Amino acid sequence: MKISIERGTLLKAVSQAQSVVERRNTIPILANVLIEADGANVSFRATDLDIEVVDKAAAMVERAGATTVSASTLHEIVRKLPDGALVTLSDDGTAGRLTVEAGRSNFSLATLPKEDFPVMATSEYACNFTAKAANLRRLFDKSKFAISTEETRYYLNGVYMHVSDADGGQVLRCVATDGHRLARIDSDLPDGASDMPGVIVPRKTVGELRKLLDDDDMDIAVSVSDTKVRFATPDITLTSKVIDGTFPDYTRVIPAGNTRRLEVDAAEFAQAVDRVATVSSERSRAVKLALDEDRLVLSVNAPDSGAAEEELAVAYGDERLEIGFNAKYLLEIASQVDRENAVFMFNSAGDPTLMREGNDTTAVYVVMPMRV
Amino acid sequence: MKISIERGTLLKAVSQAQSVVERRNTIPILANVLIEADGANVSFRATDLDIEVVDKAAAMVERAGATTVSASTLHEIVRKLPDGALVTLSDDGTAGRLTVEAGRSNFSLATLPKEDFPVMATSEYACNFTAKAANLRRLFDKSKFAISTEETRYYLNGVYMHVSDADGGQVLRCVATDGHRLARIDSDLPDGASDMPGVIVPRKTVGELRKLLDDDDMDIAVSVSDTKVRFATPDITLTSKVIDGTFPDYTRVIPAGNTRRLEVDAAEFAQAVDRVATVSSERSRAVKLALDEDRLVLSVNAPDSGAAEEELAVAYGDERLEIGFNAKYLLEIASQVDRENAVFMFNSAGDPTLMREGNDTTAVYVVMPMRV
Repeated sequence: MKISIERGTLLKAVSQAQSVVERRNTIPILANVLIEADGANVSFRATDLDIEVVDKAAAMVERAGATTVSASTLHEIVRKLPDGALVTLSDDGTAGRLTVEAGRSNFSLATLPKEDFPVMATSEYACNFTAKAANLRRLFDKSKFAISTEETRYYLNGVYMHVSDADGGQVLRCVATDGHRLARIDSDLPDGASDMPGVIVPRKTVGELRKLLDDDDMDIAVSVSDTKVRFATPDITLTSKVIDGTFPDYTRVIPAGNTRRLEVDAAEFAQAVDRVATVSSERSRAVKLALDEDRLVLSVNAPDSGAAEEELAVAYGDERLEIGFNAKYLLEIASQVDRENAVFMFNSAGDPTLMREGNDTTAVYVVMPMRV
Repeated sequence: MKISIERGTLLKAVSQAQSVVERRNTIPILANVLIEADGANVSFRATDLDIEVVDKAAAMVERAGATTVSASTLHEIVRKLPDGALVTLSDDGTAGRLTVEAGRSNFSLATLPKEDFPVMATSEYACNFTAKAANLRRLFDKSKFAISTEETRYYLNGVYMHVSDADGGQVLRCVATDGHRLARIDSDLPDGASDMPGVIVPRKTVGELRKLLDDDDMDIAVSVSDTKVRFATPDITLTSKVIDGTFPDYTRVIPAGNTRRLEVDAAEFAQAVDRVATVSSERSRAVKLALDEDRLVLSVNAPDSGAAEEELAVAYGDERLEIGFNAKYLLEIASQVDRENAVFMFNSAGDPTLMREGNDTTAVYVVMPMRV
């Protein structure tokens, strides 16, 4: 193999690859990136056995071939090369070394045989459709904060992507929950997606996917089977196993009958919650909301360190209510609101509370109260 | 006590105070800042028993008095208050609470009695002088990287500030070393400093001092005794114990007879060292310098991961030399050079090497070689 490639192009491809590689793994070849040169393209492939990413990059291929080298070492080298440098990668196929040359720098890296690299088996996908990057980004960005980190509840360690019925017809929906809070985000159903099996996309995949979604108008090819999901741009293909479990019936958790309506400026609300939470001890972090006619008093009482109180002018016309929440959950939910006021719908101090942006029902959040 | 103070002013004073406070300490009052209001000034005092910082800030003092509250909680609260807010701090002297009010926010913080706060004993200082912030900043910034972190060699855990003879007469000198590398930085001797006892300024004090030195033309009042050192601006007074030990005779370590002279662009050199070091294993990190007529080849050979080589055009007219160094030490030293080329003076592969900026002898670095 012998290829020449622009440093910026190489860096982009290797960055994506090395981020999939797990820092600590006991199988040496999983630390490596598989470089395959053929025609006018070079592909960089990395995997942790659950996720596989393949980056295609334009290069001058002088001699086709393939080898594997340490993804992190290659990434570090390329990162440190000067901008605009032309990088040559070559191996003679026998010595077990890959030579990396750029300007007066010359590196010789240990390789492992390409045959040992675990390429993810190709699958049949039950459903293929195309979605705009901006839509997918919204679905995952607004739901991922609620993903559970409890390993025992593995079926909550991801975002449940599925097709659901909503008021205006079928939607593509992402749901995540950890049992304390829940996010349910809808977008228009792309053509051809109506038969999509519901899948739980693992947390790490959600993180890697995010890097494909920066360009609003990019078309993302999505393929889904019962066991795998694939997201692809013209250059990058991300394939991931999905979580083998059943996502709980979240619809029962979303309160439909909450009638006490609070409308508040989301940024002001978040800042006030953040401030009053300062005095609370790390463990409990309970913030009390006391609601009265167009008036919200946030307060925290931490016997050890002190107390805090802040008043906000709000729109509230129902009877008095006192309800407590984990400050971190309130902050995370309030920070999802980007366009309009936050609207909270309460029932009682013991019931789940619903939050949405204005009257928009395509992004709905639920948070459990805590006793204060 | 009752005072009103602008949020920005308060934040600056409390920031400096809380950074001296140790995160983990077993004596509760050491987590607190002592607030003393008198006349038109409020002072904020914090200590870890080795360092004490006192910040004076302009405030409207409605009722004089003093109390202590958690430095980190007060800092967090003030940080989260909106810019431009007027903050009122008040206590009634009996309830053991400090009230912090700003806009519609209201905090009540637990206090501890001011009488329990350990105020550092005042001392007689043998020597008092004034130095420009820019000069002190250079002395400490260029030497602190060489401070030892080995606790057993406590007498190397700081910067040795003393008066010394140099070519042009007496100088104010800072020296730091960890036994592997050494930095010796000189500046003009300020008026009145010639009798200064040599003191070892602890690492943490060097870090706190740095925050007083941002304004080039600020006059810093320096006071030194055998046991303490004090640095003061009109607003901030930093007092610190010095390390109770004898700094070793560093002059014997600085080679005087090295004759092989290498001159190299410091930034190019640092980048090349950084690149070739990429392939080396974390433990050894040895970089080999092979010098020949106007030519420097940097190389690393790491049996596990690979090899790297890079050539630089340099000025070198002596006989061939191969010498090895710890990559981290070379990088740190090269990054001290900011104006001119780096000049290395070698003797043999086993002897300490000297580095300076051009022909400037007011900043001299020594680095021990390692076998490669």
